[in-house]
Amino acid sequence: MSEVQPSAVNRNCLACAFPFWGQLTPAEQEQLCRFTRPVKYRKGERVHSPVENCVGILLLRSGQLRAYLLSEDGRDITLYRLFQGEVCILSASCVMDSVNFDLYIDAEEDTEAYCIGAGVFRQLMQQNVYVRCYAYQMTAERFSDTMWTMQQILFMSADRRLAIFLTDELAKTGGADLHMTHDQIARYMGSAREVVSRLLKYFAGEGLVRLYRGGVEVLDKERLKQIAHGA
Amino acid sequence: MSEVQPSAVNRNCLACAFPFWGQLTPAEQEQLCRFTRPVKYRKGERVHSPVENCVGILLLRSGQLRAYLLSEDGRDITLYRLFQGEVCILSASCVMDSVNFDLYIDAEEDTEAYCIGAGVFRQLMQQNVYVRCYAYQMTAERFSDTMWTMQQILFMSADRRLAIFLTDELAKTGGADLHMTHDQIARYMGSAREVVSRLLKYFAGEGLVRLYRGGVEVLDKERLKQIAHGA
Repeated sequence: MSEVQPSAVNRNCLACAFPFWGQLTPAEQEQLCRFTRPVKYRKGERVHSPVENCVGILLLRSGQLRAYLLSEDGRDITLYRLFQGEVCILSASCVMDSVNFDLYIDAEEDTEAYCIGAGVFRQLMQQNVYVRCYAYQMTAERFSDTMWTMQQILFMSADRRLAIFLTDELAKTGGADLHMTHDQIARYMGSAREVVSRLLKYFAGEGLVRLYRGGVEVLDKERLKQIAHGA
Repeated sequence: MSEVQPSAVNRNCLACAFPFWGQLTPAEQEQLCRFTRPVKYRKGERVHSPVENCVGILLLRSGQLRAYLLSEDGRDITLYRLFQGEVCILSASCVMDSVNFDLYIDAEEDTEAYCIGAGVFRQLMQQNVYVRCYAYQMTAERFSDTMWTMQQILFMSADRRLAIFLTDELAKTGGADLHMTHDQIARYMGSAREVVSRLLKYFAGEGLVRLYRGGVEVLDKERLKQIAHGA
């Protein structure tokens, strides 16, 4: 592979989109340019799991990733989601000595990203303390996200959690409809389908939502927000 | 305060016990020596909470700290414990931008530690990337501990969790007796007292344990280990 001039590097290199680019030496920048590649995941595709090889660090260009825990009997609990412009660090957990737990990451939509492979990223973390610091700081942010989720799951009453979930999902789209089955909602909330179905029927009875096959229409956003806030 | 010679610093300074000491400049070492102080907590004393001022980073010299989540209605869930020689980083969470969740830390036994106050540690993190990296790496380790606990709580059957708890506790002491009430065991496991009492009676009925006021004697360690391993 031929040498790349620094000026050309900055224009053509995918790696310069990563937040730690400015902390790299010219030699590290050049190395990273050669080894950063665009990747695509189809909706539903597995990105990371405890049994597969470590992908590396991803910068999302479009789509959505979902990180979750999975039990032996197949139950899953969503910890957090990542969207365009965000960095997926725990898909590189194999190169971080201090991160050691079984996490799954799936593409929830068709997703495009820039990827720095695990091997190159490991080397970069070892030789550049700023990159190492960035990786662990990102991990700490995911820790905060995860603890928020855990508190919802462990402590909050189910109706409040469902109201928060519906309110948050609609805030993303701006509409009144959520095209998800009860089973999907339950999995996203880390709850049981029976609990979600029961609560949705209760909400429907109260005139808060209308249920139809494959979806939920929110009729009273204000009241739902009040429940979400514990009123 | 009078100037301290570097050679004297190393001999008399409490701060040199912290793992990042070797990464500090002489000026930083000197500053840290002046501001690191020994602290004591009595058994049961609150070390850190979301509403109190941020203590800073602690290096445990003796005793035990317990980090936990607390619900509005008073339920608590133990996330991890820290022992002699370990560093408590999340008592300095206020100085880490990327760490943002409500954690409680109590002294579970009379505890002695060296403390670098939040203000000094904040300054040190800002000016020294190695200290910043250390802080976030420690946070990532606690993340791993926490996720292990969460998986026990969310996914594992209660009898297996109780068996693991009893086995782990006895492994610490080497004995057969655990001097804890059912309520204490439940709190440590993040479970309900009723569940723990029911299971302990079940275990007693099976000849695995003997129950007495204020404690549990394990009669069949091997069988308990088998349950702990899901057999």
